[in-house]
Amino acid sequence: MCRLVTSVRDRGNDSLAATNQRKMDSKDVKQDASCCSPVCVHNPHLDALKDDVLYHFSLGTGTHDLPAMFGDVKFVCVGGSPWRMKSFIEYIAAELSMEDPKAEYPNICAGTDRYAMYKVGPVLSVSHGMGIPSIAIMLHELIKLLHHAHCTDVTIIRIGTSGGIGLEPGTVVVTKQSVDATFQPKFEQVILGKTVVRNTDLDQSLAEELLQCSKELSQFETVIGNTMCTMDFYEGQARLDGAFCSYTEKDKQDYLSKAKEARVCNIEMESSVFAAMCKLSGLRAAVVCVTLLDRLKGDQLSSSHEVLHSYQQRPQILVGSYIKKQLKAKAAHK
Amino acid sequence: MCRLVTSVRDRGNDSLAATNQRKMDSKDVKQDASCCSPVCVHNPHLDALKDDVLYHFSLGTGTHDLPAMFGDVKFVCVGGSPWRMKSFIEYIAAELSMEDPKAEYPNICAGTDRYAMYKVGPVLSVSHGMGIPSIAIMLHELIKLLHHAHCTDVTIIRIGTSGGIGLEPGTVVVTKQSVDATFQPKFEQVILGKTVVRNTDLDQSLAEELLQCSKELSQFETVIGNTMCTMDFYEGQARLDGAFCSYTEKDKQDYLSKAKEARVCNIEMESSVFAAMCKLSGLRAAVVCVTLLDRLKGDQLSSSHEVLHSYQQRPQILVGSYIKKQLKAKAAHK
Repeated sequence: MCRLVTSVRDRGNDSLAATNQRKMDSKDVKQDASCCSPVCVHNPHLDALKDDVLYHFSLGTGTHDLPAMFGDVKFVCVGGSPWRMKSFIEYIAAELSMEDPKAEYPNICAGTDRYAMYKVGPVLSVSHGMGIPSIAIMLHELIKLLHHAHCTDVTIIRIGTSGGIGLEPGTVVVTKQSVDATFQPKFEQVILGKTVVRNTDLDQSLAEELLQCSKELSQFETVIGNTMCTMDFYEGQARLDGAFCSYTEKDKQDYLSKAKEARVCNIEMESSVFAAMCKLSGLRAAVVCVTLLDRLKGDQLSSSHEVLHSYQQRPQILVGSYIKKQLKAKAAHK
Repeated sequence: MCRLVTSVRDRGNDSLAATNQRKMDSKDVKQDASCCSPVCVHNPHLDALKDDVLYHFSLGTGTHDLPAMFGDVKFVCVGGSPWRMKSFIEYIAAELSMEDPKAEYPNICAGTDRYAMYKVGPVLSVSHGMGIPSIAIMLHELIKLLHHAHCTDVTIIRIGTSGGIGLEPGTVVVTKQSVDATFQPKFEQVILGKTVVRNTDLDQSLAEELLQCSKELSQFETVIGNTMCTMDFYEGQARLDGAFCSYTEKDKQDYLSKAKEARVCNIEMESSVFAAMCKLSGLRAAVVCVTLLDRLKGDQLSSSHEVLHSYQQRPQILVGSYIKKQLKAKAAHK
């Protein structure tokens, strides 16, 4: 099992990323060649913990047999809404012919209302709430959970909603690169009061495989492009319909046009920290979001409930199809 | 009804705050003297909207009679957990002798799983999820809701949980000032890709009244102090138990000691944007958080469910007592 121990003290650089790279060539990792691709934590202090309480999941190493519960997980899908993540597990169960018509899929995190978690076979579905801090708490505990459960070769995909830029509503965007509000591909993490810059690279081959899957499905438009990740839904995304707005329609259009020039196809609120944390922990990661509206044409989400609901199913359908294809290929390979 | 129209384009300064101050002396506001203290939006574009869809509440001006539903609201309590905000409305209903033993308190936002909202008499209880982006979306839509409902003289209190610094677990902290991870009393809002700095002042007289209330209750320790608001629960709060940690126990202790020197009593993840947005909209605001552990002594939330649950009731008890006292005083004044 891989644990990349870091003792480098943070001095404003991303010591974790640098240490990660150094350790990749070290004996520690070479000795771990037996496991194909583990889920890595980078925290020497975890060894000192008798039990590890995953507080926001209401799970823990002292109270739950995590390897027995999660050891077979190969795909993790995450999304903001707990309802959507429950609907995804029902959908994937049917797709994989693993549904139990008698069973309700129980919420594994029923002891808390912070996140919801469902599992069927090798697929885990977890909600993360809205915004970077909310998904970051979930990812810290998810990465530790997968590590404690000795999971290997895990693919993680965020299935979400977003505002599109110059795209027909309902278009699905597979993220090439997550960029910040100044269109830079970086995530700023504050540690001990100092800002550390982290890389937001996602797995390009996974993105291409997802695009290929969508072509084969041929049910809706899917594109690959950059995704802007913001800290706010209203002023942070140049919306004109928040409680506060100190800029004009022209200011908004100018800003979104600049985003478009930087190849931003859509805007959401979680992709940058998702990309950064998955990269640090060695998870193969993708972001697949449907656009609910074209932000060049408006700000309000005023489409009917039915239309918005059908759009939200598209990332589920695409990712469901991808997982099915992967499992089929793996079974054929055996 | 007050609407402080701003046409000043954002150029890196906090134009809203500046405009707010100027407009306070202007005719526009003087003409509004009939309303004691309205809930202010600062967005000239809202006039152009036929209907205003409050998407994350699943409410809207075109679909709901907001003045009839919310016009009598005088107290809004917000907190991260939907379960806790339901339990608060049940508690306050009993405290105010307004409970209906036959009634379940319905979730007013039942059409969405993003936030939960409950109401009894003049008290509204709303969940906000975890982190600055999540509470900011809720506050934009709450401020618009209160504005559309023509509410006046509204007091808003965040009742939350936090990590304490050098305090006995279970101590309640009423926030004097919300500070960032460098202990500065400011909130940075990114607008059109530029950073605008906003003030995080809270209502000092309200904080003192809450402290006085706690003295009268005499059930648990309550202090007034600064609250540090971070973007992350693990690395952002110098925890040693996240998936990633590149610093030592000594680094952590040094950082928390500096926080203590800056009079930080507790750490949470929402107070700065809460303070900033409430100030801009003219809401009388306070933050009341219980400390679940002493961060100088540990990081993990490993106390029993019962102990943590009893701690979490303390802000509810304090704020319940405050609301009851205010309503009694108002009734006596009539």
